[in-house]
Amino acid sequence: MRKVEVCLTPSLIEQHDLKGKVVVVVDIFRATSCMVSGLASGVKSITPVSEVMECKELMKQGYVGAGERGGKKVDGFDIGNSPFSYMKEEMKGQKVAVTTTNGTLAINKSLEADEVLVGAFLNLSSIADYVLKSNKDLVIHCAGWKGTPNLEDTAFAGALIKKLGSEVELSNDGASMAKALYENYESALYKNLLSSAHAKRLKNFGIEEDLELCCTIDKFNIVPVLKGKELVLA
Amino acid sequence: MRKVEVCLTPSLIEQHDLKGKVVVVVDIFRATSCMVSGLASGVKSITPVSEVMECKELMKQGYVGAGERGGKKVDGFDIGNSPFSYMKEEMKGQKVAVTTTNGTLAINKSLEADEVLVGAFLNLSSIADYVLKSNKDLVIHCAGWKGTPNLEDTAFAGALIKKLGSEVELSNDGASMAKALYENYESALYKNLLSSAHAKRLKNFGIEEDLELCCTIDKFNIVPVLKGKELVLA
Repeated sequence: MRKVEVCLTPSLIEQHDLKGKVVVVVDIFRATSCMVSGLASGVKSITPVSEVMECKELMKQGYVGAGERGGKKVDGFDIGNSPFSYMKEEMKGQKVAVTTTNGTLAINKSLEADEVLVGAFLNLSSIADYVLKSNKDLVIHCAGWKGTPNLEDTAFAGALIKKLGSEVELSNDGASMAKALYENYESALYKNLLSSAHAKRLKNFGIEEDLELCCTIDKFNIVPVLKGKELVLA
Repeated sequence: MRKVEVCLTPSLIEQHDLKGKVVVVVDIFRATSCMVSGLASGVKSITPVSEVMECKELMKQGYVGAGERGGKKVDGFDIGNSPFSYMKEEMKGQKVAVTTTNGTLAINKSLEADEVLVGAFLNLSSIADYVLKSNKDLVIHCAGWKGTPNLEDTAFAGALIKKLGSEVELSNDGASMAKALYENYESALYKNLLSSAHAKRLKNFGIEEDLELCCTIDKFNIVPVLKGKELVLA
């Protein structure tokens, strides 16, 4: 049976063997929610990079630049880290270069995997379907917050595990913890995730609409997959 | 209000500021369950050390030597890592030197704290009472398994948070995750913790009695506290 394990933060990813596996990277507030929203709304490709300078280099080549540090847009970038900014009409057909605090780091620490997907509540069922069609073991890689585990990414891991159901075997305690967390939270998901440390930080920036969108399940029916350095539709 | 945070594995302890705080170290299967059982049963003191050689040096000075690696007793030691071996008549009045895979490491990575306590389900309420009488913030330091988070230590953290109730404020997402996990597990704690990866490993060693004892709540009414290099009764 297909095995699934959960890595609760990129700080612990070295303890997981990614070779031959599918990795789903998740950063609910807000990097992977942005990526899913953008690709579902007509963005051509999204290139995650670790450094601000690297991102600015790509902007010179015509990419739309998206930069976030500590929850805020970085000066000199076209857009920040709001999923709504990825869904605007003028983003259609564009190539985006993005650097964020946690999400792009998690993607760049997943490159040993056979396939790297990007998941969010927004495309939960599509990710589950894609994983079930593959015959590979799965690692759910939570981006967390500056090296520590967080509620919202762990809850997503639990939601995905629940969606995969009896088709998968939980192969580490992180997976069992994520499943139990989601079971405890799912009846009031948005309310519960608002209590996360990161949601509290972000609420101070007046972006409740972003948070609510990021907690919406199955708004989009797409799977972003990493091809070379670009995320594109699978 | 008193703050409580949870560190899910010693690999992440550097991200917590321990200064001025009380740290409760927990390694349910089985190091801290052993320590609590021993001190409650008349053991005079327990000295946790990181290395097997250090432990053997103390044995030459008359200490009872307890050594465990990978769940099994190390050759040349008096006892392994079963709480029952700490509760024997002949252990009364003895000084014990102990080295284990995870628990002693977590203790030795907690030394910056103002006070280091050792907790287990076996002394849950006593630990809660002690913490509530202190006016310090709390870090619950889960020993985990070889650097990764585990179910049983995280569930203990949640149980302690629940016991502390409205007297404490959850100050990181690890604390919220632990609380949700325990709420999901508490109606069938033993059965749920048997599904943990480490319990499965240990069951192969034929020690179900140990596991059941380690999941017993409030069997003892003591608090082990680190004084210098020794754990003694508070």
